[in-house]
Amino acid sequence: MNERLTDEAYARAAMTYLAEPADRWLGKLIRVLGAAGALDAIKHYQAPAGGSPRTKAGEAMRAAMDRWRTRLPELPGPEEVLDLRKAGIRLTTPQDPEWPGQLADLGDDQPYALWLRGNADLRFNCLRSVAVVGSRAATAYGSYVAAEFAASVAARGLAVISGGAFGVDAAAHRGALSAGGVTIAVLAGGLDTPYPAAHAELFEAIAAQGALVSEWPPGRNVSRLRFLVRNRVIAALATGTVVVEAAERSGALNTARHARDLNRRLMAVPGPVTSDLSAGCHRILRDWQGTLVTSAAEVIEHLGPLDARPGAATAAPVLPRDQLDLDSAKVLDALPGRGGMGTVRVAQGAGLSPAATATLLGQLATGGFVERCDDGWRLRRTGRPACPP
Amino acid sequence: MNERLTDEAYARAAMTYLAEPADRWLGKLIRVLGAAGALDAIKHYQAPAGGSPRTKAGEAMRAAMDRWRTRLPELPGPEEVLDLRKAGIRLTTPQDPEWPGQLADLGDDQPYALWLRGNADLRFNCLRSVAVVGSRAATAYGSYVAAEFAASVAARGLAVISGGAFGVDAAAHRGALSAGGVTIAVLAGGLDTPYPAAHAELFEAIAAQGALVSEWPPGRNVSRLRFLVRNRVIAALATGTVVVEAAERSGALNTARHARDLNRRLMAVPGPVTSDLSAGCHRILRDWQGTLVTSAAEVIEHLGPLDARPGAATAAPVLPRDQLDLDSAKVLDALPGRGGMGTVRVAQGAGLSPAATATLLGQLATGGFVERCDDGWRLRRTGRPACPP
Repeated sequence: MNERLTDEAYARAAMTYLAEPADRWLGKLIRVLGAAGALDAIKHYQAPAGGSPRTKAGEAMRAAMDRWRTRLPELPGPEEVLDLRKAGIRLTTPQDPEWPGQLADLGDDQPYALWLRGNADLRFNCLRSVAVVGSRAATAYGSYVAAEFAASVAARGLAVISGGAFGVDAAAHRGALSAGGVTIAVLAGGLDTPYPAAHAELFEAIAAQGALVSEWPPGRNVSRLRFLVRNRVIAALATGTVVVEAAERSGALNTARHARDLNRRLMAVPGPVTSDLSAGCHRILRDWQGTLVTSAAEVIEHLGPLDARPGAATAAPVLPRDQLDLDSAKVLDALPGRGGMGTVRVAQGAGLSPAATATLLGQLATGGFVERCDDGWRLRRTGRPACPP
Repeated sequence: MNERLTDEAYARAAMTYLAEPADRWLGKLIRVLGAAGALDAIKHYQAPAGGSPRTKAGEAMRAAMDRWRTRLPELPGPEEVLDLRKAGIRLTTPQDPEWPGQLADLGDDQPYALWLRGNADLRFNCLRSVAVVGSRAATAYGSYVAAEFAASVAARGLAVISGGAFGVDAAAHRGALSAGGVTIAVLAGGLDTPYPAAHAELFEAIAAQGALVSEWPPGRNVSRLRFLVRNRVIAALATGTVVVEAAERSGALNTARHARDLNRRLMAVPGPVTSDLSAGCHRILRDWQGTLVTSAAEVIEHLGPLDARPGAATAAPVLPRDQLDLDSAKVLDALPGRGGMGTVRVAQGAGLSPAATATLLGQLATGGFVERCDDGWRLRRTGRPACPP
């Protein structure tokens, strides 16, 4: 994110205040008008004089406008949105280098914008990532497997994505943290008061070593529907999804269905046929063409050959620094040897425009050369996992 | 089996004494000469004068002849073979109506003959049957699942086939017995002293309610190689094989491989990925295209629609008695209302030759009208499972 908000970025932030995620009508409107145009249309909408519109679509759009306009009075201005950075909460939109491009697979249902807390670069870390999800009421077996799998894949340089909930989710996050890896929690409410409150310390640890992500702006509470709509983002962000334990009707199966529908790798861990909490996993394996995985190595193998090479986790970036194009090399040279630096100062040092610098920093992050930090961007520490582009 | 042995039947019995099962050379020889011809060839074989034969095949056949002829002195005569019936041990060969035709899928490796103890008709019961196999060192989970699955499929009228060993095998046999179903133990040694000795009572119960089967004549001990060669018969007899618990290198995986190679339905029960005894099952599911099953209902469903219809297990034979051909009806009428009768007496009652009567009785067994008993054949009791032809 830049030091100022573009109109488009602000409009996308505004949409997270005005509408619930995956509002089909809003997705269409943004696709046609752009977010700034859509916000303008919402702000200045006037119901046609003389009663109801003639068509069903017109009627639905009118109802949607009424719905969105209800929240206009509480919409913060651009300065207030930027001010959230003081609380560590930043915004990313499809125009940012940090935006994970694979969210486009969600079509009109893709998030308007994402709110982030934490140091990890979202795009870079999601390039090779695994969602590890499952039941809140996990058994000792499920918690153990989730933590073990997460620790192993995180140690191999893959980010572990989950939902921050009790049970399997928490075990997965903790497993990745314990291995010194990156983990990302995709939450179903505002990042100012992440839910569940009992995980406050866990969320702090995740923010320090990864990222908290939400489609909802600060101030919003979780709800059952929000958990469900959130699940599509978990599935879309991750290269593959592993269901560790899940009952027959569970949120984890909902995430699995999204992963399948999005053509992501879908995996499930088998368990005792006598355990209700493995029934959902067995359904995935029997009826949904999911792949049975019994170890983190099998998970990585199923994600494809890219990172499966022995030693790849600690290898240097594939592209040597001296083969970078001139502008990228300038950006790298402008970064300090220790600590981080804001995009504008990097741009000044490199003698490039801030916009071009932001794009190049994103590409360099994807290539494993730089990463986000509290102060903006920094050179990636040696020994950290590198992910070839 | 008839009251006397044909030359061919005796010769096949003799082969079980002279050779180990699945001796390729003997299989070929029987295919070319018939069993009686092969026995004659073995008995009268004379090594060609003047040193070694010229060809490799000739050399191998000569070595095989030497091997088989070694055991000629201990070969019992036809009367002694018939005498084994006093110990409840009878013989069945490919010429008998009771011979399970699906063994032909083993090609030249099919058993020369089978020794049987027990009342169940082997051919009829194997028509719709499930092999339930697994580790000798089963966990409580494996034993529980084996017994539950076996009891449920047996209650639906399917025979449960296993190897009579400790662990999963024993649990499967006991489960079927507890449901009043038919269970068949395919053993790797003589039926006079079935192994393991600790299962003596279990084997008695199996003989009373099902059958003990062996390729080896009375007097032969088990051995590791015999267990392995036995496994192909378990896989070939059963419509499908379910592996309940198996380590990575185990006899149960050997049976599973035979089932796969014979195009039988191959199934495995998942378990905790933390259990070494589920690792073989997970391999079957991941790498061998086995089907994951979590219940007996799923096993029956995977075996195909024939018996999966609700109520099929207790339904009457598909073909009504009054639609039978005249000779079959004569045979049925000749059987007593209660108790059993030998084939020759049935033939006398029906006014047909004993050979024709034996064939018709086999067909009637397949159709679910009659079954074997201590005295020969009897009408099938109502309420017993019927298996449409």
